[in-house]
Amino acid sequence: MPMAASGRVSRRALLLGLWSLAAMPAPVFVGGLRAQNVLLPSWNEGPAKEAVVAFVRAITDRASPNYMRPEDRIATFDQDGTLWVEHPVYTQAMFALDRVRVLAPQHPEWKHKQPFKAVIAGDYRAMAKFGEADWAAIVGATHAGITIEQFLNIARQWLETARDPRWKRLYTELVYQPMLEVLEYLRANGFQTYIVSGGGQEFIRAYAQRVYGILPEQVIGSSIATKYQLTDGKPVLMRLPKVFFIDDHDGKPVGINLFIGKRPLAAFGNSDGDREMLEWTGAGDGVRLKMLVYHDDAAREYAYGPAGGLSDTKVGTFSRSLMAEAKDRGWTVISMKTDWKRIFAWE
Amino acid sequence: MPMAASGRVSRRALLLGLWSLAAMPAPVFVGGLRAQNVLLPSWNEGPAKEAVVAFVRAITDRASPNYMRPEDRIATFDQDGTLWVEHPVYTQAMFALDRVRVLAPQHPEWKHKQPFKAVIAGDYRAMAKFGEADWAAIVGATHAGITIEQFLNIARQWLETARDPRWKRLYTELVYQPMLEVLEYLRANGFQTYIVSGGGQEFIRAYAQRVYGILPEQVIGSSIATKYQLTDGKPVLMRLPKVFFIDDHDGKPVGINLFIGKRPLAAFGNSDGDREMLEWTGAGDGVRLKMLVYHDDAAREYAYGPAGGLSDTKVGTFSRSLMAEAKDRGWTVISMKTDWKRIFAWE
Repeated sequence: MPMAASGRVSRRALLLGLWSLAAMPAPVFVGGLRAQNVLLPSWNEGPAKEAVVAFVRAITDRASPNYMRPEDRIATFDQDGTLWVEHPVYTQAMFALDRVRVLAPQHPEWKHKQPFKAVIAGDYRAMAKFGEADWAAIVGATHAGITIEQFLNIARQWLETARDPRWKRLYTELVYQPMLEVLEYLRANGFQTYIVSGGGQEFIRAYAQRVYGILPEQVIGSSIATKYQLTDGKPVLMRLPKVFFIDDHDGKPVGINLFIGKRPLAAFGNSDGDREMLEWTGAGDGVRLKMLVYHDDAAREYAYGPAGGLSDTKVGTFSRSLMAEAKDRGWTVISMKTDWKRIFAWE
Repeated sequence: MPMAASGRVSRRALLLGLWSLAAMPAPVFVGGLRAQNVLLPSWNEGPAKEAVVAFVRAITDRASPNYMRPEDRIATFDQDGTLWVEHPVYTQAMFALDRVRVLAPQHPEWKHKQPFKAVIAGDYRAMAKFGEADWAAIVGATHAGITIEQFLNIARQWLETARDPRWKRLYTELVYQPMLEVLEYLRANGFQTYIVSGGGQEFIRAYAQRVYGILPEQVIGSSIATKYQLTDGKPVLMRLPKVFFIDDHDGKPVGINLFIGKRPLAAFGNSDGDREMLEWTGAGDGVRLKMLVYHDDAAREYAYGPAGGLSDTKVGTFSRSLMAEAKDRGWTVISMKTDWKRIFAWE
């Protein structure tokens, strides 16, 4: 098929031309005049920043044995605790709890029925003990029974006004500036940046493009089933109260293969749920970047993990065995305290 | 987050610059000198070709009320019967049957056990009566119990040598030249082209990039479950004999939302299995292209459908009700006989 072949080659050449421009020595321009020519300006000099820069140079240098074509430059990022704050509890959980309160007037029976009763009464002691069945009931009541378009609108409206309990900021302001810079730096060097999150895929899609510059088709997450149906003759996709895919732990490499069909060159996580994604990434040939964000800065954000004050946290657990595996396999652990000059853009 | 915002804007501007070049009046160059300046050269002039060209112009013309940004230019293509030949039986079914014969020596019990016995004996009368359970057993024995990498290698090796019963050509040569031209034309105008097939996602990934210029992450298909495990300390994704997702009929819009998270602007199919994809596409705002390839050319390919000789076919059924819906909703039916000047590149 000479037509298709030549068409592909010219398209590829076009792309390569573009990437080679983007990959030229001139660094990414960020912020105002002051920040020009500074690579990853919110990172302190040190092994973590060096690991990122050395990796990108190896992959994009045509003379390097580790050079990879742009189409193979895949980088995957966990979200909660890796790209934005996850404590004291996942943002999506806050959304679900708020949504229960909004819907409560339509469900008078919830006043006498757990887990809704505890949420409506603001009984945090009871909420802290919620198990899988409680959360399934809450997700079913708040995330399903509506179309995908309705859900996206509800999530977007909530994100426009809801504020976190500590800084009183919009949740979408609680993204880590150093990680935004890594996303930009990788994309400027021809990488495709994917979110690979245990959180809800459609919830993340509600803001990922605006907040991270990540398109809907590059958001991989957990999902509930959807059903195609005609409502008043109009096709809709209805969200069902039924788990479809859990994109966490061993589900992350499964999800990566399902959605991308390529092994990442770089993977970023922060907890035990990211272990298999980093293993899968690291088992590929050539140079691979495997990084874990370590929450050790109680003053500027939170400290939890083997050496932190909240080492028994169920939200973003960084176990001693994960730290041991990171050392053993040569994964880079990013210390928020020492590697990040700035954590949030508004600091 | 001014950094992220400005970074995104400049990246977007870069992309827009590229697309605007690609979308300039100069048409796609195809083939040798002779074909230059001819848009979609394997198409005869007529309403089908006109529909494609008018659609692309409306979407890419910045002065048009139907102008869409490149990131929203999504086009989805069924594969079997839309991009390549599906008769007398799906290529993947031929692969599975061949694979049973290859594996038979390792399974002496198959000689006495259906459905394998019929396949090994070449009993086509029995094979024609295979039901869902028979095919599930065959897929389980031939597509599972191996890693994704092993499966891709096996599929690729088979495609390098297996030949179809009618033309004695490689299956990858049985792609429709007019559709390759549409894929190229759309991509040259900033579209992302996805395969959305009822066939196996990983099987299609074995050749989609080489044959159609479609990357693994843009192949949506049916899939079996995979399991992440460590084999001799090495992480692998093992394919399990268990259905995960059926990307056919109402599964097509579900799969499109799951993998892309956007509604297509254009959708191409050829059978009842594509009905919901075209409905979903057509229910979006503005100009949408909805096309069905109609197999009415027994001399150059096959004729099956309401007016064809094989109207009761189970492979690529084009029912009378689909034809009625196409008329009712204004979908464009492509006649292979009258709209396509050439069907295969090697003609």
